[in-house]
Amino acid sequence: MAHPGAMPIHRATVKREWLDYNSHMNDANYLMVCGFALDLFMEHVGLGEAARKEHGMSLYTLQAHLSYMRELREGDAIRVETRVLDFDDKRVVLYYEIFRDKDAADAGPVAACETMNLHVDTRGPKSALFLAPTLSQIDALAQDAKRLPPAKYAGRPIAIPRKTTSAV
Amino acid sequence: MAHPGAMPIHRATVKREWLDYNSHMNDANYLMVCGFALDLFMEHVGLGEAARKEHGMSLYTLQAHLSYMRELREGDAIRVETRVLDFDDKRVVLYYEIFRDKDAADAGPVAACETMNLHVDTRGPKSALFLAPTLSQIDALAQDAKRLPPAKYAGRPIAIPRKTTSAV
Repeated sequence: MAHPGAMPIHRATVKREWLDYNSHMNDANYLMVCGFALDLFMEHVGLGEAARKEHGMSLYTLQAHLSYMRELREGDAIRVETRVLDFDDKRVVLYYEIFRDKDAADAGPVAACETMNLHVDTRGPKSALFLAPTLSQIDALAQDAKRLPPAKYAGRPIAIPRKTTSAV
Repeated sequence: MAHPGAMPIHRATVKREWLDYNSHMNDANYLMVCGFALDLFMEHVGLGEAARKEHGMSLYTLQAHLSYMRELREGDAIRVETRVLDFDDKRVVLYYEIFRDKDAADAGPVAACETMNLHVDTRGPKSALFLAPTLSQIDALAQDAKRLPPAKYAGRPIAIPRKTTSAV
């Protein structure tokens, strides 16, 4: 298990097969890329492949909310930064930001994703409490995240902004 | 263009390559399946492949919020029911429910997905008003959706439910 502290960053290059007919990265593949970052998070908090095979524990996604700000093209070098927004004894709220390496430092993320994840004993499947070492790692990450700028795209419902009441 | 009225239903069977290491359908592939239903919606409202190539117009996803209720396994026959929750002159909020055919009629969806979509002139890309025939089809679908049960998983932010204030 890694030492507590900053999360490792997932890096990738956008592949041709991740595009759709608009020639930009397909909606679903943003979530796939965040899934790769989730794998890193799981390794970091002691829920990696070895632990999963030994104890049968895993993280299941209950909700995922993606916000798409800019397009990604084939060959774009990207990185996914992951933080812990909230947690309790069996759930953790993660927040991913996808950045494009060639963008200006103040350009902000090309996309963000907030997820609610549940710790699960896959032999049920049923929800299960985090083990103490995992909970300690998650707590360290949550404390570390407090030094970061606000999670701008987290916690918001989907709604068309209007000055007056909807006519629909 | 199809006549106004009920949306066509997308049907699929869960493929082995859609699973992950938990042997259930991967998070991202729920969004991929909703993307197939989006293609049907676009055909239905006059934004299909032919129109896209002729006018250069498409729908871009601004946000997507998935709620996962139950697991899907290889070979599960599923259907995606799509409705229009809201719209204005260039945006539409869609709500997808994924059902498993073998479930009881009152079992509810295995997953739901709410998306905010923007009508885009891909030659910019820049946002563009819907053409009148498309707006009319979207309006017909929004009216039709009023007869359906409430969209239970729409409009909610991600948050860990607590009786007291978070200690994080």
